[in-house]
Amino acid sequence: MIINGLPGELLSANDRGLTYGDGVFRTILVREGRPLHWQQHYDKLQHDCSALAIECPSRQILTAELEQLLRIRSDGIAKIIITRGTGARGYAPSANPQVTRILSITPPPLYPVSFASAGVSVHLCRLRLGHQSRLAGIKHLNRLENVLAAAEWNNADIPEGLLLDEASHIIEGTRSNLFLVKQGALYTPDLSRCGVAGLQRQRVMDWAKQHGVECKVADLQMEALLAADEVFLVNSIIGLWPVREITGFHRVYFPVSLQIQDWLNHGCD
Amino acid sequence: MIINGLPGELLSANDRGLTYGDGVFRTILVREGRPLHWQQHYDKLQHDCSALAIECPSRQILTAELEQLLRIRSDGIAKIIITRGTGARGYAPSANPQVTRILSITPPPLYPVSFASAGVSVHLCRLRLGHQSRLAGIKHLNRLENVLAAAEWNNADIPEGLLLDEASHIIEGTRSNLFLVKQGALYTPDLSRCGVAGLQRQRVMDWAKQHGVECKVADLQMEALLAADEVFLVNSIIGLWPVREITGFHRVYFPVSLQIQDWLNHGCD
Repeated sequence: MIINGLPGELLSANDRGLTYGDGVFRTILVREGRPLHWQQHYDKLQHDCSALAIECPSRQILTAELEQLLRIRSDGIAKIIITRGTGARGYAPSANPQVTRILSITPPPLYPVSFASAGVSVHLCRLRLGHQSRLAGIKHLNRLENVLAAAEWNNADIPEGLLLDEASHIIEGTRSNLFLVKQGALYTPDLSRCGVAGLQRQRVMDWAKQHGVECKVADLQMEALLAADEVFLVNSIIGLWPVREITGFHRVYFPVSLQIQDWLNHGCD
Repeated sequence: MIINGLPGELLSANDRGLTYGDGVFRTILVREGRPLHWQQHYDKLQHDCSALAIECPSRQILTAELEQLLRIRSDGIAKIIITRGTGARGYAPSANPQVTRILSITPPPLYPVSFASAGVSVHLCRLRLGHQSRLAGIKHLNRLENVLAAAEWNNADIPEGLLLDEASHIIEGTRSNLFLVKQGALYTPDLSRCGVAGLQRQRVMDWAKQHGVECKVADLQMEALLAADEVFLVNSIIGLWPVREITGFHRVYFPVSLQIQDWLNHGCD
């Protein structure tokens, strides 16, 4: 890990990234010493910083720091966190904040190859995303909704959860973007009220354009998903996973049912 | 500052408090070596931890650590941050997280005494709070809405901003709770969809009960505020500030107006 240019894993506990989640981040796949789509990731980082009025470090600085880490680990996941830096108590940003940059590369995740070829089961999350247009699309550090959603299930065979918003629109996976395929066209949820607009989502839209396939950004409900020819999830780490199944109702404990069942079977009291 | 029982200001950059804002906090007024309403603050800390399924450290541990800090500074603001601790990449909490506790005491803020006696001017924030019932009321570390709101104005004479929600309900100040007084009764916004339910809000409600004054939790719009006999803000640090004025429209640069004015005054082109 490199923090503000120096090797180390320790950060000031006054950093606004901790106290308010006042920052943004990216996760980037690294293969054979190369961060994939680095220019596009940097552009998105810059965009997200700008949306929060955080000064984005230069591409040169971040590239140099990434290269330092790549000498130690050439395959895995690079993560870049940019925060507004340390600050005194109080929500208002100081006039001249020194932003904090935190870069790391961790080992690549090991997913069964079947996830990409045969598709995945997806949990339908109970948590509904709230609307906040000022933060929608940005990969910021306020991720409690994702944390609560990801805590809803714990099953290695179900690697992702599907998130709807408060208006019952389908929005995304907990850490991926979503597309529907219907009669040769692509559909992906509108992320202007909530959700994270990932780089891989943009790349799918680029693919559609290059291949003359219509791709619509739209408000989508569960009905549209259930009627779709195909559904798939994308992010920079997993690539693309087709969705095989959506599951949202698991019960192994049904005392009331059994009580009524017993009554039905054995007479009344 | 004391982190996990040890003096110091440095924290692991893998702490989920930083990476996801996965934690809660309290700010407590400290006077003459005593944290005011400590038992109630601890109860609320426990409540907020529980809402996020974070194990709250024991009152004994936190009291002992506060007392260490009080030996160094006996007046000011104590802040306690509890996070879900360090974690591997990924939103899902690990099975047995070791929570992080960060305690500090900083100097008391210096507000003009007139704020409490003559009231304050309040900025009407443009940012609207989004709804998220799972997080509403909790003083968690996802505070980007407050940061964006507090960045809207910069004027020491206007010490607080008023936040509405996406449905145009009045909710709170950026760091305080709000009450209206109307015909002898108190009204305070419903915080079941957004906002932070502060300890001082609860204390005002306790005051009303003890004094036989009706206090209603309600959906309140700007019309109710403008029609109120009095409006006031409370939090543990400021105590109570009456609201003297609400301002939301400041312009010192009006080129189009001046252009039209000029045209009106000096003829057409």
